[in-house]
Amino acid sequence: MLYYLFDFLDREYDLIGAGVFQYHSFRAGMAIIVSLLITIAFGKRIIDYLHKQQVGETVRDLGLEGQMEKSGTPTMGGLIIIAAIVFPTLLFARLDNIYVQLVLVAVIWMGLVGFIDDYIKVFKKNKAGLKGRFKIGGQVGLGLIVGIVLYAHPDVVIREFQTPVSVDQSDNLEVEYRDTKSTKTTIPFVKNNEFDYKVLVGWLDKDLTWLVYVLVVILAVMTVSNGANITDGIDGLAAGTSAIIALALGIFAYLSGNVIWSEYLNIMYLPNSGELVIFCTALVGAAIGFLWYNSFPAQVFMGDTGSLTLGAVIAVLALALRKELLIPILCGIFILENLSVVMQVSYFKYTRKKYGEGRRIFRMAPLHHHYQMEGYHESKIATRFWLIGVLLAVFSLATLKLR
Amino acid sequence: MLYYLFDFLDREYDLIGAGVFQYHSFRAGMAIIVSLLITIAFGKRIIDYLHKQQVGETVRDLGLEGQMEKSGTPTMGGLIIIAAIVFPTLLFARLDNIYVQLVLVAVIWMGLVGFIDDYIKVFKKNKAGLKGRFKIGGQVGLGLIVGIVLYAHPDVVIREFQTPVSVDQSDNLEVEYRDTKSTKTTIPFVKNNEFDYKVLVGWLDKDLTWLVYVLVVILAVMTVSNGANITDGIDGLAAGTSAIIALALGIFAYLSGNVIWSEYLNIMYLPNSGELVIFCTALVGAAIGFLWYNSFPAQVFMGDTGSLTLGAVIAVLALALRKELLIPILCGIFILENLSVVMQVSYFKYTRKKYGEGRRIFRMAPLHHHYQMEGYHESKIATRFWLIGVLLAVFSLATLKLR
Repeated sequence: MLYYLFDFLDREYDLIGAGVFQYHSFRAGMAIIVSLLITIAFGKRIIDYLHKQQVGETVRDLGLEGQMEKSGTPTMGGLIIIAAIVFPTLLFARLDNIYVQLVLVAVIWMGLVGFIDDYIKVFKKNKAGLKGRFKIGGQVGLGLIVGIVLYAHPDVVIREFQTPVSVDQSDNLEVEYRDTKSTKTTIPFVKNNEFDYKVLVGWLDKDLTWLVYVLVVILAVMTVSNGANITDGIDGLAAGTSAIIALALGIFAYLSGNVIWSEYLNIMYLPNSGELVIFCTALVGAAIGFLWYNSFPAQVFMGDTGSLTLGAVIAVLALALRKELLIPILCGIFILENLSVVMQVSYFKYTRKKYGEGRRIFRMAPLHHHYQMEGYHESKIATRFWLIGVLLAVFSLATLKLR
Repeated sequence: MLYYLFDFLDREYDLIGAGVFQYHSFRAGMAIIVSLLITIAFGKRIIDYLHKQQVGETVRDLGLEGQMEKSGTPTMGGLIIIAAIVFPTLLFARLDNIYVQLVLVAVIWMGLVGFIDDYIKVFKKNKAGLKGRFKIGGQVGLGLIVGIVLYAHPDVVIREFQTPVSVDQSDNLEVEYRDTKSTKTTIPFVKNNEFDYKVLVGWLDKDLTWLVYVLVVILAVMTVSNGANITDGIDGLAAGTSAIIALALGIFAYLSGNVIWSEYLNIMYLPNSGELVIFCTALVGAAIGFLWYNSFPAQVFMGDTGSLTLGAVIAVLALALRKELLIPILCGIFILENLSVVMQVSYFKYTRKKYGEGRRIFRMAPLHHHYQMEGYHESKIATRFWLIGVLLAVFSLATLKLR
């Protein structure tokens, strides 16, 4: 909102310094500062409040060392994360931007679903929480909205230039260009790194590209949202992993929304997507600020309020930046954790049917609990997963040049 | 060395794919992969070997919780770090490059000093290790070499362009330019962000710029090297902080060594400095790979072999990239830890003289031990310091646009 205020002051009264609000980089810097201030200034107070309201989420007794110490730790800390994402974005991003509107809707939508789930678990003392059907419904609903908006909204376009752009033109852009609606996305490792969903259904009589695209969106939102949810099992793991992914997405947004850099790297230039940088830095600040309290030994858990929201919004960002085919790499930790559960359960069911007794692949699923059972310290597992997350993020960014 | 092999194969036999060795980005990627492989494949074996040789460094008993558990952990793990920096650099960097030569000298020089120190501590059972004088001598010596080479070597230049560079010229650069020897460096927050050490002594009759510059270099090497040494007090702290700083320096090297990006960001273009990207990624890989074993609970300590070397080489990188005035921000953790010791000791001596009894500012110095005494878990302190390190690194990079 401050963008409009300073834009007005700049135009009407020529206020000195107000023009700096034009820059994405300046507003992104302010967003991360404010989100850190919110988490650090109010974090302690919110944690104390949550602690008073709850006796703490009843921790599932898995017989893991040190685990029962956690039973006094309050959950629903995701509320801190949501506040630290939403406020800086409202303050510093342009709210008439479709991408900004979309990610804000995603945060509030999944935040609500997660909150209801946590609320039932904590206050209704119902360990199962929301019925799985309801959670999945929330994810599918969000996927539908996001998919249709990205497919149909006139502002969601890619820009193709007729002539190459040079550095000295950056301020005063007068090159010829053409904005087009398109279902193109970025496909890694390929020389011409663009892929159009259209080709999947090109052989059909009717144009069903929209359907393919919406299904991809729903799949992405569900996978990453559930992945983050499952990853959130040991202190700091989901928050740290999300912070790393959000930083990488922020860099993608900056590069894709910048004429010079997208030209230099030969990646799609996405008009207006630069505004997402501000959202991403708020997200990084929120995750880092939360990790301040959530790292081992945790003073607060994010709960489904946090993990479902972080996962969903990461998926939406990747989709908006047309980098959703990079999700298996960039969000590798989430995917791996998700897979470990699927594999464990399927194998158990399969062997029970075949041999009469269920067998396991991992000592426990999700994966981080397997390593805990192997005797690794919770803190070491989290740190190692973060390190893998950093390498995956660096590798994802490198795919822009790898082809 | 492989650079020359593939360059030869490319020129003489036109081998398909060999040309990819021309790219900094490709060789940087290979360097990080090899350094990770070295640390992860040989790390465990080296740790076991060190363990057998030593009974583990005798840990200074500070009365801190859980501290005596550490007395079986081997030290000198810095050897792993050094191997994982040196080998990938030898393989993938151009060895005729003055910057590469300089950082390799720094690694081996300080590695030796640190190793002798650790050796005396562990095997001669002499807790004090090397006499302080000898350590400082090593740092000053390195500073002298680095200072004189950077000042006098003909390849260490900055390039100024007569005309602006554009993206389409990047492959076939025919713009006019002039390479000059210069004592200019980058000064943050200032509109024209360049500062020439010459102005400090411009009023003198004789040109003593070389003296000022060499003194700056010695000061930088000593401060950062000691800072890293002092920071290395709890599991994973020095390794993690170094990894973050090295990543930021790698980005600086990439931007300063790239014609288009240095032009776009309006920062000094440093010919040949792009080759440092390869060294930096090897350094990042080495630190991350080491952290794999060194994070809480640590299976190995880096010892002075690691910490003195990491600090010194970080200082040399910052100097070579003309970003040494950013050290107080980028290496803020090291500086703060260093300062906490200086403050504690000075205040203690001052109050003992004035009041007859020595008083303390911190419960214990360096700073991380203060927080440990306050009851924070070792792992939480390390994570929080890393988070501050990430913010400082992002802020340092942002200073390129902040003016």
